[in-house]
Amino acid sequence: MYGKEELSNLIETYIRELPFPEEPDTLYEPIVYSLEGGGKRLRPLLAMMACNMFSDDVMRALPCAAAVEVFHNFTLLHDDIMDNAAVRRGKPSVQRKWGSNSAILSGDAMMIYAYRLLEEADASILPEVLRIFNDTSLKVCEGQQYDMDFESLERVPMDDYLHMISLKTAVLLAGAAVIGATCGGASQEDCERIRSFAMELGMAFQIRDDVLDSYGTQDALGKKIGGDITEGKKTFLTTAAMEAADEDTRRKLGGLMHNREMLADEKIARVLAIYEALGVREQAEAAVERYTERAIAALEALSVPAARREHMERLAYELTNRLK
Amino acid sequence: MYGKEELSNLIETYIRELPFPEEPDTLYEPIVYSLEGGGKRLRPLLAMMACNMFSDDVMRALPCAAAVEVFHNFTLLHDDIMDNAAVRRGKPSVQRKWGSNSAILSGDAMMIYAYRLLEEADASILPEVLRIFNDTSLKVCEGQQYDMDFESLERVPMDDYLHMISLKTAVLLAGAAVIGATCGGASQEDCERIRSFAMELGMAFQIRDDVLDSYGTQDALGKKIGGDITEGKKTFLTTAAMEAADEDTRRKLGGLMHNREMLADEKIARVLAIYEALGVREQAEAAVERYTERAIAALEALSVPAARREHMERLAYELTNRLK
Repeated sequence: MYGKEELSNLIETYIRELPFPEEPDTLYEPIVYSLEGGGKRLRPLLAMMACNMFSDDVMRALPCAAAVEVFHNFTLLHDDIMDNAAVRRGKPSVQRKWGSNSAILSGDAMMIYAYRLLEEADASILPEVLRIFNDTSLKVCEGQQYDMDFESLERVPMDDYLHMISLKTAVLLAGAAVIGATCGGASQEDCERIRSFAMELGMAFQIRDDVLDSYGTQDALGKKIGGDITEGKKTFLTTAAMEAADEDTRRKLGGLMHNREMLADEKIARVLAIYEALGVREQAEAAVERYTERAIAALEALSVPAARREHMERLAYELTNRLK
Repeated sequence: MYGKEELSNLIETYIRELPFPEEPDTLYEPIVYSLEGGGKRLRPLLAMMACNMFSDDVMRALPCAAAVEVFHNFTLLHDDIMDNAAVRRGKPSVQRKWGSNSAILSGDAMMIYAYRLLEEADASILPEVLRIFNDTSLKVCEGQQYDMDFESLERVPMDDYLHMISLKTAVLLAGAAVIGATCGGASQEDCERIRSFAMELGMAFQIRDDVLDSYGTQDALGKKIGGDITEGKKTFLTTAAMEAADEDTRRKLGGLMHNREMLADEKIARVLAIYEALGVREQAEAAVERYTERAIAALEALSVPAARREHMERLAYELTNRLK
């Protein structure tokens, strides 16, 4: 079996060597730039590991794994236009560097390029891979739409928030893993277990991400702590706080989230004090635990020897325990 | 064989009944709206007619034909953001009605939905259909990029202009036709002939469109005559005029194209006078003739009885002779 580093290297090399056309450079340069941006390559890694659980020939999953990563980076490119984000992974975002028209069109081309990579899938599994990829991608758009819709709401019920992140984050992790398993020849039943595993993992991962943004360290996060609070973003923490708060605290928190005048540090301190009083950090960490446990249980139900699950299990713990 | 009306009805009904999810309505409403907008449904018609030349079972081409139309409408949706266009087919554009973020995301979902329709293709031809669809779509983006790049140029060489419209317009007509022929079981050779036919037809169609915008009637065009001139858009006419003009006239035409102050009617009259003096309308009409002839020649080379080519031949003449 392949270790995490080996798989990561395969992915990185494959993505770096993707043969984009030279012309028009105004179309393809932003694509190459956005794929060079790094990131954890988590989704292709999940795909490769999922394949490797069922087959020693991981190379057959490589183009599909890369397709998911290209698609993911396409969503970031378009999300950055919608959020008017200036920075992505410490570099100017495509829309800031080339303008939003360029970001729209290069993003479109990137999505098509992802589908082009699917052509490499074996013809026997192509219909299934295409079906999973389409289903996944459409749900990611739905998740982004809910996220945008939530911006104008004062309060979002926890169930709606969880549904939104399941679409926006977990579904793509699940799609990656199931496509990888399909490339590896997994049975329908095992594909379903892999889907459950990656869905639960995705939920844990996203909530952990929400926690880290407020309670992580700048080094581990790669950006300033408290960004979500500064921008008034809806997260698991704000959602849980709004549910637990009394009328008065709720109004206070709502006011803070919309406040664009207050100094960032002051705003962060006040919001964190509310979280502290309501115990929402503990609630979020308990949710991460719960989702992680369910993910591991789904993994253990797979019809493969325990040894073949090891790398994936370790990855799951890594992803959900970055604070430890 | 099916007549044009019958095929158009099949397409219209199929598109009207596409089962879009209900939620989130903010994502899917703009998609339904943009597909209701009408238009000639030219691309799916080409696909269906191409299929019908080789097979009586046209229904098998219907989902792929619709996929091309959904993709085409997706490009219009995103183009309207890039052009900041307020109106599309006589109705407010999606970006005007719902905002550009909505137009970006609904457009993305629309493109994915197009790929979802491809899932309906028979597994035996799916790899080929997907390959053609990807190749086509990526080239359409390249064409749009060149079009945008040209905006900042004073002058575009005719070869570059023709290359741009071949990517932006002809390639999609060709993709539609070849996908349809593939669904109908056409041989590789016939697919190549169909491709040539639709590429040449696409060139004729686009140049005819450029001519109509300046010399058509408002009734036939469905919008005000001279829009391209008013907006200073690069067309076959401006490109040919810039090539034929002396230094002085070139400067005058360039100045007019950039002039945003002059009254529309005045500007149109002055530009048309330059066209008249340079004979560019005649040049454009000769080009349309030439491309149409080549299209028909490619059609006649097909290995099908003349009777099976009839509808397609008539369509080609209709599309390129709308002034007559």
